Amino acid sequence: MANPVQEFNDYRSKMNAVILEQKNLTLHRFFNLDMHAYADGALDVKTKEMLGLVASMVLRCDDCIKYHLEKSYDAGVTTEQVYEVFAIANLVGGSICIPHTRRAAEFWQALHELKI
Amino acid sequence: MANPVQEFNDYRSKMNAVILEQKNLTLHRFFNLDMHAYADGALDVKTKEMLGLVASMVLRCDDCIKYHLEKSYDAGVTTEQVYEVFAIANLVGGSICIPHTRRAAEFWQALHELKI
Amino acid sequence: MANPVQEFNDYRSKMNAVILEQKNLTLHRFFNLDMHAYADGALDVKTKEMLGLVASMVLRCDDCIKYHLEKSYDAGVTTEQVYEVFAIANLVGGSICIPHTRRAAEFWQALHELKI
Amino acid sequence: MANPVQEFNDYRSKMNAVILEQKNLTLHRFFNLDMHAYADGALDVKTKEMLGLVASMVLRCDDCIKYHLEKSYDAGVTTEQVYEVFAIANLVGGSICIPHTRRAAEFWQALHELKI
Amino acid sequence: MANPVQEFNDYRSKMNAVILEQKNLTLHRFFNLDMHAYADGALDVKTKEMLGLVASMVLRCDDCIKYHLEKSYDAGVTTEQVYEVFAIANLVGGSICIPHTRRAAEFWQALHELKI
Amino acid sequence: MANPVQEFNDYRSKMNAVILEQKNLTLHRFFNLDMHAYADGALDVKTKEMLGLVASMVLRCDDCIKYHLEKSYDAGVTTEQVYEVFAIANLVGGSICIPHTRRAAEFWQALHELKI
Repeated sequence: MANPVQEFNDYRSKMNAVILEQKNLTLHRFFNLDMHAYADGALDVKTKEMLGLVASMVLRCDDCIKYHLEKSYDAGVTTEQVYEVFAIANLVGGSICIPHTRRAAEFWQALHELKI
Repeated sequence: MANPVQEFNDYRSKMNAVILEQKNLTLHRFFNLDMHAYADGALDVKTKEMLGLVASMVLRCDDCIKYHLEKSYDAGVTTEQVYEVFAIANLVGGSICIPHTRRAAEFWQALHELKI
Repeated sequence: MANPVQEFNDYRSKMNAVILEQKNLTLHRFFNLDMHAYADGALDVKTKEMLGLVASMVLRCDDCIKYHLEKSYDAGVTTEQVYEVFAIANLVGGSICIPHTRRAAEFWQALHELKI
Repeated sequence: MANPVQEFNDYRSKMNAVILEQKNLTLHRFFNLDMHAYADGALDVKTKEMLGLVASMVLRCDDCIKYHLEKSYDAGVTTEQVYEVFAIANLVGGSICIPHTRRAAEFWQALHELKI
Repeated sequence: MANPVQEFNDYRSKMNAVILEQKNLTLHRFFNLDMHAYADGALDVKTKEMLGLVASMVLRCDDCIKYHLEKSYDAGVTTEQVYEVFAIANLVGGSICIPHTRRAAEFWQALHELKI
Repeated sequence: MANPVQEFNDYRSKMNAVILEQKNLTLHRFFNLDMHAYADGALDVKTKEMLGLVASMVLRCDDCIKYHLEKSYDAGVTTEQVYEVFAIANLVGGSICIPHTRRAAEFWQALHELKI
């Protein structure tokens, strides 16, 4: 059975390609801008990915959460730290964030299994 | 085939356990607070569960809706009453609540099938 | 100085009249539907107004909160009960509801001052 | 395998019937109002369906997006136009709309496959 | 007394200048992208402004509503048409959009008074 | 004329006192939990305040933004860094965050004027 990380990344790549081949200039620039916003700057990548994660969690976007969880993992965010991000998201965004936290916790485990 | 109520409760329990074993104090306290907020007080449990339900519905959180539907069922909310909650949710939150109402209606049926 | 309750109601009436004189059929029907949804039914007016209140609070609509606070007050909701509604709203909707709770608490006081 | 368009429409019809047989007057009127709001008027059907689509996308309601994609398709919206709607939705609603854009792009393809 | 349209535009210009002088590249590009997304393309400016308006209304952003109301006015949207946009926004977004519709109706009047 | 920072803090303190004197246990615990969630832990105060800030911005809660701007200022966040938080918020949350960014930029200036 495919790892959920792989599955998510495959669908994401496939459909991004479908979108971008339509050559809508605004969407092209927006996707490009999105990719560069998390680059090293006055804040480092690790901090920025946690900002992206907490924003995705309070807005309750599961796919965005998954995306930033993998980037956070790759940037060296520890499990203890990621749970502090979850905690702030739940406080700010309320108990409606709990189901997303459950799916995030599951994806965080899947990332560890895949990347060992 | 598993009843959707059972399935939802099983996943919920399993992942809550994963989250709580991380011992993040804020999350522990928040989960605890969430459990106690619907207890009998100046408003009774039945009213509070309907408040939780309508709030979940306008915020369009399917899992939260399921959770409060089961609690509402157990507190004695009737089908006619639960549809009045749905109606207020749809008016306040708009037609984007309709798909969640469809899934809520399906889960409400599953509760009746399971609990006979 | 005008009581904030009066001020809110005056602006509300004035602008509703402006909107309705445009004779947009959908808006007419929607406004009408909205007014009748909180009538006595399988749930009583008091419960329905609290449902409208908690929904408005988690969606963070100050004017909707004010509207349902006055209706709740008129339906006999006590201060202890209205704070239990606030509590559930804050838990479900998170700390972003706190500023709206502050304004709601202020309006609740104004209702008591006006209606003595 | 069923086309995703068919699957969506079947579930939608089935559950709408379940909801409407409960005879909740507010829900009946609301569903009815919703159906008539997109009729030809000062704005034509095609424009109104694109309004429904962009609203559904920024509110991130996948089922609402699917519904308005099919109606937009039937009203003659072209692929280039639908991507301009997607672009505005992404700019106004932010990168949390990207996952919904991916699923919308997939459904748009399915509509073309079904309706040839 | 200043016309509310003037007041809104003045504050908007002043603070945009403050933001842009910080030379944050992502914000510069995002503001730029936002300005160009409503240009004539497969959809005309008038349609795009109405898309921006309905999106702003269901997301309940008063300042965004004001911005797109002025652009819609300049693009030739009539009062009857703008109320059809309001109607769809209210249906999709629910009664929490009503207070924003009141303020939008007021701003629409102010636009007519200013631009005669 | 009062500095906007002072004004915000005064109203906040006054109304929090009104709320807390009602002795609603859930609200007491929730307010308390909220205060402690940003304490030093696996993530430092500065990072946590930026997480609170970005979450408040994408959820478009002006008062929450002000609160976390002051805490961020006190924790040593620089202007260049705060604008990188603004940039991520705008990308994730979309152009509806722009009006909140304008007010945030104004409050950030007020903080500098007050705290010199």
